Amino acid sequence: MRAVDIIRKKRDGETLSPGEIAAMVAGIATAEVPDYQWAALLMAILWRGMSAAETAALTDAMIRSGRIIDLSHIPGRKVDKHSTGGVGDKTSLILAPIAAAAGVPVPMVSGRGLGHTGGTLDKLESIKGFRVDLDLEQYQDVLARCGLVMIGQTAEIAPADKFLYALRDTTATVESIPLIAASIMSKKLAEGIDGLVLDVKTGGGAFMQRLDDSRALATAMCEIGEGLGKDMVALITRMDEPLGAAVGNSVEVAECLDCLKGRGPADLMDLSLELAAEMVFMAGRAQTLEAARSVCRQTILDGSALARFRKLVQAQGGDPRAIDDPSLLPQARRTVVLRSTSSGFVQALEARPVGHATMLLGAGRARMDSTIDPAVGVILHKKVGSSVTVDEPLCTLFVNEEARLKEAEDLIRSAFRLGAESIAAPALIVERIAREPAGSRSTSGRPTV
Amino acid sequence: MRAVDIIRKKRDGETLSPGEIAAMVAGIATAEVPDYQWAALLMAILWRGMSAAETAALTDAMIRSGRIIDLSHIPGRKVDKHSTGGVGDKTSLILAPIAAAAGVPVPMVSGRGLGHTGGTLDKLESIKGFRVDLDLEQYQDVLARCGLVMIGQTAEIAPADKFLYALRDTTATVESIPLIAASIMSKKLAEGIDGLVLDVKTGGGAFMQRLDDSRALATAMCEIGEGLGKDMVALITRMDEPLGAAVGNSVEVAECLDCLKGRGPADLMDLSLELAAEMVFMAGRAQTLEAARSVCRQTILDGSALARFRKLVQAQGGDPRAIDDPSLLPQARRTVVLRSTSSGFVQALEARPVGHATMLLGAGRARMDSTIDPAVGVILHKKVGSSVTVDEPLCTLFVNEEARLKEAEDLIRSAFRLGAESIAAPALIVERIAREPAGSRSTSGRPTV
Repeated sequence: MRAVDIIRKKRDGETLSPGEIAAMVAGIATAEVPDYQWAALLMAILWRGMSAAETAALTDAMIRSGRIIDLSHIPGRKVDKHSTGGVGDKTSLILAPIAAAAGVPVPMVSGRGLGHTGGTLDKLESIKGFRVDLDLEQYQDVLARCGLVMIGQTAEIAPADKFLYALRDTTATVESIPLIAASIMSKKLAEGIDGLVLDVKTGGGAFMQRLDDSRALATAMCEIGEGLGKDMVALITRMDEPLGAAVGNSVEVAECLDCLKGRGPADLMDLSLELAAEMVFMAGRAQTLEAARSVCRQTILDGSALARFRKLVQAQGGDPRAIDDPSLLPQARRTVVLRSTSSGFVQALEARPVGHATMLLGAGRARMDSTIDPAVGVILHKKVGSSVTVDEPLCTLFVNEEARLKEAEDLIRSAFRLGAESIAAPALIVERIAREPAGSRSTSGRPTV
Repeated sequence: MRAVDIIRKKRDGETLSPGEIAAMVAGIATAEVPDYQWAALLMAILWRGMSAAETAALTDAMIRSGRIIDLSHIPGRKVDKHSTGGVGDKTSLILAPIAAAAGVPVPMVSGRGLGHTGGTLDKLESIKGFRVDLDLEQYQDVLARCGLVMIGQTAEIAPADKFLYALRDTTATVESIPLIAASIMSKKLAEGIDGLVLDVKTGGGAFMQRLDDSRALATAMCEIGEGLGKDMVALITRMDEPLGAAVGNSVEVAECLDCLKGRGPADLMDLSLELAAEMVFMAGRAQTLEAARSVCRQTILDGSALARFRKLVQAQGGDPRAIDDPSLLPQARRTVVLRSTSSGFVQALEARPVGHATMLLGAGRARMDSTIDPAVGVILHKKVGSSVTVDEPLCTLFVNEEARLKEAEDLIRSAFRLGAESIAAPALIVERIAREPAGSRSTSGRPTV
């Protein structure tokens, strides 16, 4: 079948066969299907949608466009976590060492930040010497030695996804749940994992602002993973206000170190522990989710999670002294404290303008080719539910370039909404999506400790 | 505004401004808008449609992508006819000499055949020496000398349409009424005409098979033309059975010569005269449509239409001897007569399989780069309403290559449906679409004879 006939079929709302989808994806590498035919198909997919079977076939074809890493020589069930991204979302740096310390091998291929959201790789690179550009042999070696590894996507992993991702960005075809799900899952499933815990954000600071869309995306990703024989669970979590207090790069690493030392902010600590517990339970390292939670808390208390992070930093070339002395992380030239002009309780703290403000300070990227400044960022002193008096600090800005400082200040001020009513911050975890309920899951055929 | 934002706007069902449409079309020539962005926009337009204003803006931008021919130095209102194409549709070669003989300058830029439909240029080229590749200066010269001219589209006319037409063909975005209307009208309005008569086909052998779609296309084209200050009228005509008896190239030219000599088949003659009368009335060469019909019939009776055709053939380098002796047109090596195996009345004669059969014999193109054989084709001896006895000839095939002869024979046999009931062929003209009713039209400000 010719590409034009496959496009026509999707255009007319018909279902594509796995063979048709595989031919279109294979045609990227051979240049038999030019970008303009894919552009038309992408718009037709955005219009008509894709069934679960079509989405799985697309993911599978994208995985097969590159190398699938074989981690079968490393004992234990390998589990990763993926977050759809948000402001101050730094859980990877906390939960990966926790899960690794609990005996779960964590092979993690992460991305960089774009727009108002940060990226794990950028944060890690604020540790002097830390290298995220390992090749796949080094990746497997670090995983075997440390029980965790954190790298960036290599050219060998799902190259078809790279092509389609760039094409979607320029053709207004990003906002399609099956395309988003297939893109994420193709990269994650090529890592060599046995299971994946998803943190799908919902709310004003998330890519998916509506709960229905977040649920649909979570379901689509779980279906893809399960269809390809992986264990899957998704937590839908709120991204209305930033997660934790720090937004930036070195400030976020410092906050992660606080968490690993048992003194981080409650919202960040709780979500990181819950996601880590899902990983531990999924890997069969605990019989119930509740038992997994205990195991995870213990890795903080006994320092084993922090020790794992230290091992990781050393293995990937980073300076481990920053772990004990975060002042060795890049520091901004000056700080600016924003103070409240009124009193009351923080009713809302919008994540998106805070993310944009830190981007304006230089902590994030407006475009993929922008460079970032690891030292700059924001630390929030007040979050939803906090009481505030006049002149009390709302946040501290860490500043190097002042060109857009005023704009950033205004954005952050606009993000705070104060009111007279006392209010409790809503629960972060909105929903858990899994085929089997937690705790009642069969572990037959799966190794346990 | 960036191209991706314009695509997103159309994707979300919003209306594009004339400036946005002009920027997208201008971006073709400058390569600022790559083909993949246009491919996504085309699919979004197919999905969301375009308003009359958007379609007019697209047409206008495509016209301005090339040269607009100025025919103002040639006296009289210049009128052309455009048909959406069908099987055996050869009216151009008949009505253009008629209208020219009635005093209407007819500047005609035509296309080639594709698939089951034939093209005016291919037919003309079966006359030895006839050149359709005149440049725009020769085009104006022939028009001034003969009162009509027939050429192919040049690179200077609406180059943006050529780009988009090729892109639509490979991205399954052909079947969009606004895109079809804008494509046709951009080429026609660049010719330098004052008015255009449309023959929009409907039925099984037409591009638009449903009457609703044909009516929508006719209306869209009339709106575009009127919006750009042109006189417009559209006839919606049946394309269920082939028009006339001949399907091919030299066989169709011979049939046109019969018509110009006053002895052609009734359906072809009637439709050609009616379209010519619309042109004559539109150009102000008659006060009423009925009067225009008389004027046109007279050009056949007095031989002036045939004389105009002779003048055209001579002016464009063709051998005029073929006009008096059609046996000088390319002749096939052999003929095959298909005879009826039953008796009754022809209830239906499907145009599409007849068109495909002549394409298999070599008279048409499966792809734009196929070459055609001018000598081969079909002459139908029976049409809808004809009585047929066993063993009576249904049609004669003119054959050079026999490779696909059997397939062609089977196709044509399958096209005939015989039944016991006597039946009259339905009227060819289904509907007339014009802003003002025929005959009541004001001619103020328009020269009349």
